[in-house]
Amino acid sequence: MKREDIRRIAVFTSGGDAPGMNAALRAVVRTAAWNKLHVYGIERGYEGMIDGHFKRMERRDVANIIQRGGTVLRTARSMRFMTPEGRAQAADHLRAYDIDACIAIGGNGTFTGAKIFSEEHGIPFIGIPGTIDNDLYGTDYTIGFDTAVNTAIEAVDKIRDTADSHNRLFFVEVMGRHSGYIALHTAIGSGASSVLIPEANTNLEDLKTVLKKNKARGKLFSVVIVAEGHPMGGAAGIAAKIKDDLASMEPKVTVIGHLQRGGAPTALDRLLASRLGYAAVTKLLEGEENVAVGIVNDLVTLTSFEEAIYKEKKPQGDLIEMASILAI
Amino acid sequence: MKREDIRRIAVFTSGGDAPGMNAALRAVVRTAAWNKLHVYGIERGYEGMIDGHFKRMERRDVANIIQRGGTVLRTARSMRFMTPEGRAQAADHLRAYDIDACIAIGGNGTFTGAKIFSEEHGIPFIGIPGTIDNDLYGTDYTIGFDTAVNTAIEAVDKIRDTADSHNRLFFVEVMGRHSGYIALHTAIGSGASSVLIPEANTNLEDLKTVLKKNKARGKLFSVVIVAEGHPMGGAAGIAAKIKDDLASMEPKVTVIGHLQRGGAPTALDRLLASRLGYAAVTKLLEGEENVAVGIVNDLVTLTSFEEAIYKEKKPQGDLIEMASILAI
Amino acid sequence: MKREDIRRIAVFTSGGDAPGMNAALRAVVRTAAWNKLHVYGIERGYEGMIDGHFKRMERRDVANIIQRGGTVLRTARSMRFMTPEGRAQAADHLRAYDIDACIAIGGNGTFTGAKIFSEEHGIPFIGIPGTIDNDLYGTDYTIGFDTAVNTAIEAVDKIRDTADSHNRLFFVEVMGRHSGYIALHTAIGSGASSVLIPEANTNLEDLKTVLKKNKARGKLFSVVIVAEGHPMGGAAGIAAKIKDDLASMEPKVTVIGHLQRGGAPTALDRLLASRLGYAAVTKLLEGEENVAVGIVNDLVTLTSFEEAIYKEKKPQGDLIEMASILAI
Amino acid sequence: MKREDIRRIAVFTSGGDAPGMNAALRAVVRTAAWNKLHVYGIERGYEGMIDGHFKRMERRDVANIIQRGGTVLRTARSMRFMTPEGRAQAADHLRAYDIDACIAIGGNGTFTGAKIFSEEHGIPFIGIPGTIDNDLYGTDYTIGFDTAVNTAIEAVDKIRDTADSHNRLFFVEVMGRHSGYIALHTAIGSGASSVLIPEANTNLEDLKTVLKKNKARGKLFSVVIVAEGHPMGGAAGIAAKIKDDLASMEPKVTVIGHLQRGGAPTALDRLLASRLGYAAVTKLLEGEENVAVGIVNDLVTLTSFEEAIYKEKKPQGDLIEMASILAI
Repeated sequence: MKREDIRRIAVFTSGGDAPGMNAALRAVVRTAAWNKLHVYGIERGYEGMIDGHFKRMERRDVANIIQRGGTVLRTARSMRFMTPEGRAQAADHLRAYDIDACIAIGGNGTFTGAKIFSEEHGIPFIGIPGTIDNDLYGTDYTIGFDTAVNTAIEAVDKIRDTADSHNRLFFVEVMGRHSGYIALHTAIGSGASSVLIPEANTNLEDLKTVLKKNKARGKLFSVVIVAEGHPMGGAAGIAAKIKDDLASMEPKVTVIGHLQRGGAPTALDRLLASRLGYAAVTKLLEGEENVAVGIVNDLVTLTSFEEAIYKEKKPQGDLIEMASILAI
Repeated sequence: MKREDIRRIAVFTSGGDAPGMNAALRAVVRTAAWNKLHVYGIERGYEGMIDGHFKRMERRDVANIIQRGGTVLRTARSMRFMTPEGRAQAADHLRAYDIDACIAIGGNGTFTGAKIFSEEHGIPFIGIPGTIDNDLYGTDYTIGFDTAVNTAIEAVDKIRDTADSHNRLFFVEVMGRHSGYIALHTAIGSGASSVLIPEANTNLEDLKTVLKKNKARGKLFSVVIVAEGHPMGGAAGIAAKIKDDLASMEPKVTVIGHLQRGGAPTALDRLLASRLGYAAVTKLLEGEENVAVGIVNDLVTLTSFEEAIYKEKKPQGDLIEMASILAI
Repeated sequence: MKREDIRRIAVFTSGGDAPGMNAALRAVVRTAAWNKLHVYGIERGYEGMIDGHFKRMERRDVANIIQRGGTVLRTARSMRFMTPEGRAQAADHLRAYDIDACIAIGGNGTFTGAKIFSEEHGIPFIGIPGTIDNDLYGTDYTIGFDTAVNTAIEAVDKIRDTADSHNRLFFVEVMGRHSGYIALHTAIGSGASSVLIPEANTNLEDLKTVLKKNKARGKLFSVVIVAEGHPMGGAAGIAAKIKDDLASMEPKVTVIGHLQRGGAPTALDRLLASRLGYAAVTKLLEGEENVAVGIVNDLVTLTSFEEAIYKEKKPQGDLIEMASILAI
Repeated sequence: MKREDIRRIAVFTSGGDAPGMNAALRAVVRTAAWNKLHVYGIERGYEGMIDGHFKRMERRDVANIIQRGGTVLRTARSMRFMTPEGRAQAADHLRAYDIDACIAIGGNGTFTGAKIFSEEHGIPFIGIPGTIDNDLYGTDYTIGFDTAVNTAIEAVDKIRDTADSHNRLFFVEVMGRHSGYIALHTAIGSGASSVLIPEANTNLEDLKTVLKKNKARGKLFSVVIVAEGHPMGGAAGIAAKIKDDLASMEPKVTVIGHLQRGGAPTALDRLLASRLGYAAVTKLLEGEENVAVGIVNDLVTLTSFEEAIYKEKKPQGDLIEMASILAI
């Protein structure tokens, strides 16, 4: 699509919310306004697209939101959008509002929906990777990841006060259903003794050996970080399997939970979200479509929805080894 | 005991750790140093008293700890101290170090131990109320309570971002095994829809009615705060009982957990801990013994261990009603 | 005024903004809604009253603001309201909107305006003390004070990292034009060596002696807290007078500044603001007028505007002495 | 130098302190311990090297410091190390302790000292870039930068509450004597209207035009971020030049100051510091010397001291343009 053919765009957030989505939204709206485009915000992602919940957004409508967690457009997971009928309804609304292109802020499911929809209905999409899990190919970081890791580390810092005061062993579960990014970064940042993630094999005997050895060496307390999606059943599952052997360390389990999704975004997430929102509009006006924007090695990058959805992104393996050496 | 007979004192932290314990410790050591007393710190509470883990503490040894969570003397719950033999061993160590009096920082269990011990062995104690639960009679606030409430509210603020973005219902469990103080203050401070505490009867039908009515009135999301010790089984127990009726709100459960115990103490906790540590030494030198210090209506107060342990302290009932009106 | 005669009220924030003002506003609007009153919010305080900037506020209009700093109604200092003409214009607007009573959230200047205006125009007012300075008689704490102190202490905690790493002396200025409350509480909470406030005489020779003695005793760094309104010219003024004598400590000056006014309110400020907002409406409906609500010793209290404005409130003198002992 | 010849190393922090220095120190000590090296910590940088303040550091000596701001080894700027005599004394001490190599954590001045010293005395050095300013060539980020930016943004978030409530214009000064990195990232992250940095020409007429235009377009408040080292005299200097023309916006000046140096390091700074400390020891054992380690595009990189010191690193110019578009 050529630049001069794009006059009206829609933007929405979809899937799990992530801190920085508002900063991305602000960047999209303002960059679009700067380029004289009309912008419509769609409420609650694909749900709102199906139900026709559109509202005009101008530059002042995104004032004072850069620092807010969540998303002012709200978000949802949509079952109806997985059906051709749902998507047809959505397409009708987009046409009724005369929308030339859409910008979708979200994760894997969001991009999958965008890909199918644009193929069916011919409306171009640009994707902005927003998910705390950092599991999207085509960008070094996704929007929300840095905030989630900082939130998790702050929580572990507090738990350490108690672990240290009581000489205890803590199993702390962080988010990440299919990905160990949050767990690995939290573990290194909080000086945890071990980290258990879906991407690496976990040998519980080794884990017990490490924890006992650390204690024998004078380490007074230990924290083990476990990714939510660990196949052995998260922190509770793993603790259950080994706690009898480590009873003298009074093992405790804490699940940090939903608070990892919220809060004011960090500097990095605000900068990332601003750059990606800006790039999404700019690239759209340069004729790009059906790609996700990302930042790789500090440069704006485009990745086809196909690759962004299916290519695997894995945390660096050598960081796991480093983490274990630094926790001796 | 007369002032001139007190030359050497011991101080320790015991039971669950609470933010501000270090600030109290600093105040005890420095006020004692100012009064030319020798101070010994006992590690790990009554456990260290039994094992003879004493160390000399001078004014510089408490430098730069006022802002730290946890307790630099560490803490423990001691089974052995519940036996006459354990206490006799502890008394031997105190005598070996020529300790004239002890200052105990902790909660109900700590004070109970102090009471029995001082009756048996004739060594005077002063108690400083340190517990996040605020369930000790004889002081408006206990050390750590304000920090725990602020931590819980910050967590709920983050959860609200997600609750708001997804229009969801959250059941959030905060600490408080026998006491609803943390839950009630967290609920008011976080603008929660309802609060369920051990001290008040919970009618689940009423709760469902309120939540549905709020939704009908346009309230887009709701947070219900539940005290850990709620007889219906905490947040998970309550959610299980009513979630089917509220399925459209996608109810979620979050347990904030141990992070409530840690973190840098708030201004109020540092001031309170400083005043109580200072008062403990001052009152000891005025001849007081076997009492807990507290602040009631901004004035230092003394309460016998007997009363501090057995008298009940309850959150103000009218605050519960107010909370429900403010959340409409 | 009798309860049944009050049907429509106005609420506004005025003077310097303070964290917790939004929580108070939410409490006023919801308590009023609960009592079937119509509420109008006036923008920018007395300025908006003069200019007729009124808007209807219903319960949902104050959703999700309890945690926000600043004031959603905005605020201002009004020169025009100091003139009879300005006040007459304001009265015209109140009558045009059929307002039966006003609730004013602010400090000394706000209450002074309310007093004069209600005497002139016969419209009853209730005042809610909102100012970070805590310098209003009739309440233990004003809304915003606890947040400001916590913000200042967090700032000093960070400065201590540097002071400690470099073995330096820091003069840190906190807010408080006529009042040393923020300075005194910040000093105790941050373990500062000294505190200089308008309410106490400052002898610079004594200060130098203390700082030198501390250094001789092995104290590696020192922080001196100075109230903005100190007659010797704030932190910069005092540092200038004594820095030559203390050059070996590399004295530095930091002014914490406006960030003390902002940020999410603390638990205490949210609870206080909620109670005061609730009480303001409740007391109005009980027939009270031209008084400020407050909390003294945990109970709601009423104070005539006269007393609230003119009676002096002073920080406890013995806390200053305690602070100096604890910093040895 | 060959791996087997390195048995004893020294580590120190020098120059301005930066959050994350402790995490780097922990990583150096533990990686060295893992490789069976003996480690000595030198207190107060080159000052301590000259005065012989060395202490043995083992793995437990760096427990529980990853989360602390400042540096437990303390730091200083050393005049004496700029003289051949001072350096000779330092070399004597290193030889007396049988030190085979040194790891220096600091900025430009630290690396300059290391370069001269190693040329004169033949003791190999590895540099770790630790400075909040991010002005060192050879690494995408320096240790402490991310924390400083987050601290500055949090401060501006608070100032925005007041700016918004009062409809004001704020000039906020952040650190950066020769570099605009902190200012630029703070400006984007805080949604500031404009940013003034040493690397870009500032046209005050343009600035006034932008601020007036924004106001005319309905922007209710504005924040301008100024780098400390701006040639027009920092925030105060710039405000003085234009405040008369913008009087209606009630311009205020705030200098965030030293608190930017302190505080618990962010996730990114802890990860970066851990990787760099680990890499410094690893590379030393691989025979590298007189280079600084860095992370460029997520990979460990080595840069000669020569280049690290003299090559210029500049913030991306197009980010400045983006920032101005996003703030319309």
